[in-house]
Amino acid sequence: MAEQVEHVPFEPVPQEVLTGFLAALEPNLNSNATDKTRIGLDSCLLPTRFDNLSIIQTVDFFYPLIDDPYLMGKITCANVLSDLYATGVIEVDKLQMVLSISTELSEQERDVVIPLVIKGFKDNAKSVGVTATVTSAAINPWCMMGGIATSVCSEKEYINPLNAQVGDALILTKPLGTHMACTVNRWMENPERWKKISQVVNEIEVKDTYNKAVASMMRLNRKAAELMHKYGAHGATDVTGFGLLGHAKNLVEFQTNNVKFSIHTLPIVKYMLAVSEVTGNKQKLVSGLAPETSGGLLICLPEGVAEDYCSEIYKSEGCKAWIIGKVEEGNKTAEISKDVLIVEV
Amino acid sequence: MAEQVEHVPFEPVPQEVLTGFLAALEPNLNSNATDKTRIGLDSCLLPTRFDNLSIIQTVDFFYPLIDDPYLMGKITCANVLSDLYATGVIEVDKLQMVLSISTELSEQERDVVIPLVIKGFKDNAKSVGVTATVTSAAINPWCMMGGIATSVCSEKEYINPLNAQVGDALILTKPLGTHMACTVNRWMENPERWKKISQVVNEIEVKDTYNKAVASMMRLNRKAAELMHKYGAHGATDVTGFGLLGHAKNLVEFQTNNVKFSIHTLPIVKYMLAVSEVTGNKQKLVSGLAPETSGGLLICLPEGVAEDYCSEIYKSEGCKAWIIGKVEEGNKTAEISKDVLIVEV
Repeated sequence: MAEQVEHVPFEPVPQEVLTGFLAALEPNLNSNATDKTRIGLDSCLLPTRFDNLSIIQTVDFFYPLIDDPYLMGKITCANVLSDLYATGVIEVDKLQMVLSISTELSEQERDVVIPLVIKGFKDNAKSVGVTATVTSAAINPWCMMGGIATSVCSEKEYINPLNAQVGDALILTKPLGTHMACTVNRWMENPERWKKISQVVNEIEVKDTYNKAVASMMRLNRKAAELMHKYGAHGATDVTGFGLLGHAKNLVEFQTNNVKFSIHTLPIVKYMLAVSEVTGNKQKLVSGLAPETSGGLLICLPEGVAEDYCSEIYKSEGCKAWIIGKVEEGNKTAEISKDVLIVEV
Repeated sequence: MAEQVEHVPFEPVPQEVLTGFLAALEPNLNSNATDKTRIGLDSCLLPTRFDNLSIIQTVDFFYPLIDDPYLMGKITCANVLSDLYATGVIEVDKLQMVLSISTELSEQERDVVIPLVIKGFKDNAKSVGVTATVTSAAINPWCMMGGIATSVCSEKEYINPLNAQVGDALILTKPLGTHMACTVNRWMENPERWKKISQVVNEIEVKDTYNKAVASMMRLNRKAAELMHKYGAHGATDVTGFGLLGHAKNLVEFQTNNVKFSIHTLPIVKYMLAVSEVTGNKQKLVSGLAPETSGGLLICLPEGVAEDYCSEIYKSEGCKAWIIGKVEEGNKTAEISKDVLIVEV
């Protein structure tokens, strides 16, 4: 899998390009909130032919970003389920893994790597009682992996993501910079890059950070979703390819109320700030535009319960969540304060 | 899109490879019929948490095989829905198109091509009252397209594909060789290939056959599915990448009864037999192994109603269906008779 990693395009198709295509084809798409979520967010609720039951489905594909196939399978599973969890839906009726096997893999590589990727995916699903099925899409130059999560649910299982209120706190349930931690881990094999980076971190620190990042990406956002119900969340999104700010903008744009998201704190994986400084990527990281894989949920929560939410996540999972901003009156924009506080994690 | 077409891998990952991976991971998977369909066939029925309701989902991805983006979108839609229709389920609750945009397309090409592909997909879905949504997977070296069809249905909407009876007729609802007709159309631009082919067909004949093949691939298998209920079908599969015989073998292998499928007739698109002879592909075509895209349904039907089924398809759609074989006592194999009758269509 190492070959693929080098080709990984870190940017998906720009949001505005696809949105533009769709808007041109469907001029009436913005007529109601349910339709809005078709474009703006990664999942949508559709009524079925049966009373009070809706179907919600999320689809996600990407390229492997670490070399360990088993762990990559686990990350893929977490990433696929994350879109569903962002809507508060936690019961998964069908989880289908989809794999495109790389044409660059030898038969022997394929026979070792692919079963491990599948096993990782299935094991992570099994940890929350879901039996995943697997389908092979086609062979492809790059190894592509992803899946489809589907739930048939009643409306009360779903948290409409468009109800942010002025005064809400913004919560983030995983630190930023995990994708970068994987990239830096790869750069250890590149003498030129390593020369720069080793000014600020040593090998042990890079490996340690990489391991923490992988653990974070494998972690399911299920508990975070469950607690969204308990604490009355007003909407959420997961943070992936467009970075924290990209997904925040996406979420705020479709809100019912005239609000803006003001982000005052950025929890970032340790050493990544220093590394980004010496590699010239600092601006991207501190402006919230660094892509994440299988990132946390960004949640709008009533201010009074925000700390309780974070401490309950910590108690049950041993992982921190952070209050990173607030919902203010505004014009459906999202921004990061000039004097943003960086918290190293 | 012309560039992609040249790379098209005509063979998906071999069936036995994926089946092998899955069998190794899931030793108990063959314990009941519903589970069997997870491996052997392209769709499966899963219970939901709600009384008597199941979820069925089919996933399909492939590469464009014709240059016209709008028609390719229509073919993609027909191909995605076909797996669902093969189970007799005709109400689609969610249809999601998934696109990987090629890195080889310029921005200008992309802005022309992709909206047309999407429009073709959506228009074909709309023709049966389904509103398709679109998601972009990621950029990819090759343009990859496909989708996910999901239905929440009651059990009676689903036709268990495993009930073939000795004495049943085998029906095929589209002719074979459509994929080859597209390849031959491309070969007109290749002087060396054309020199061979033009011994047996002229340009007008190639174009005409190509147009008929495209029309056949765009055609939905919905009516065929609807009539499966009316005439009491005992099971079906759609015919795609593994060719008629590949899919027949797949279907027969999981039957409840000890049966074999004996195929005595092959309806093949006009000129393709002659072309396959001069290009050395005849063996593949007449042995039922030539891949198809968006092919017909192969249906096990009580013998007494087989002709009525075919004539009702013809009356309502103006397209022929054929009785191509019969279900006999046997050891779960499928074979094509030595004295198979080739019907040019």
